[in-house]
Amino acid sequence: MLQVKGEARVPDGPMDESPLYLEDFAPGFRFTGGTRQVTAEAITAFAREFDPQPFHTDAEAAKATFFGGLAASGWHTAALTMRLLVESGLPIAGGFIGGSGEIAWPQPTRPGDILTLECEVLAVTPSRSRPERGTITLRMETLNQRGEVVQVFTAKVLVPRRAPA
Amino acid sequence: MLQVKGEARVPDGPMDESPLYLEDFAPGFRFTGGTRQVTAEAITAFAREFDPQPFHTDAEAAKATFFGGLAASGWHTAALTMRLLVESGLPIAGGFIGGSGEIAWPQPTRPGDILTLECEVLAVTPSRSRPERGTITLRMETLNQRGEVVQVFTAKVLVPRRAPA
Repeated sequence: MLQVKGEARVPDGPMDESPLYLEDFAPGFRFTGGTRQVTAEAITAFAREFDPQPFHTDAEAAKATFFGGLAASGWHTAALTMRLLVESGLPIAGGFIGGSGEIAWPQPTRPGDILTLECEVLAVTPSRSRPERGTITLRMETLNQRGEVVQVFTAKVLVPRRAPA
Repeated sequence: MLQVKGEARVPDGPMDESPLYLEDFAPGFRFTGGTRQVTAEAITAFAREFDPQPFHTDAEAAKATFFGGLAASGWHTAALTMRLLVESGLPIAGGFIGGSGEIAWPQPTRPGDILTLECEVLAVTPSRSRPERGTITLRMETLNQRGEVVQVFTAKVLVPRRAPA
């Protein structure tokens, strides 16, 4: 599951379970997340709770909108992407904790879409004020079954540093 | 509910229901969203589905983590913010459709927090290639009951232009 370029650690075997610290990452570190099919029912249920607009809640009414048919809320795509990220199994020390990022939805998630996740570390930045931690800049691309990008989220993810020996 | 500076349209009465087009917005246009209290049960339910990490799903296990206690997934805060935005009742033509944005979570949403939403238009940009639409740059600040910012999302929101007379 893990692939890596550059000087980052290459996990052994099917999945190395020991935690990954800031020192274990380098630009070019890549990994993949889980897979999830999105149903019309899931799209409308999420939207009724969080984004109750006709193009997300009502397939018939959605036809006359910008989307031309039922489309998942961008926040549904984002929440599902988080699930796919956790399902990557990447044993990042302390868990996945994002502080900020840039998000874009080049096109919507549609009923029946099967989403997958491709991740790449773009930068590794030790904190200047907090010697015990730093951030990785992580680009997460969520794709549908045709390889089309439905979301790009590039985030600063908090990662602890390994305690000094 | 609506306040406006500059040259944008000032809606009359308690709520002007006629749709707002790109021409109706100007930098400084402000409005507020709905209000929502967030329970521990809602935090863990969202997290079990979308962000199953101990600091979001288990109040006891969360104590030993970076957050020091149960914290909502940032995506839960984002999804709730979308709900508060829809509840603003702002009659934006075609609905709220965001294409991209920058998001930050200066601090987490905690159990019992009461969230509110403050929005301001920063820019209005007609599309160069699509004469029938444009974007507004909308800054959305989600606050808790102590006035602390739990999320800032600055997005490009698609808005149709008024049809030529």
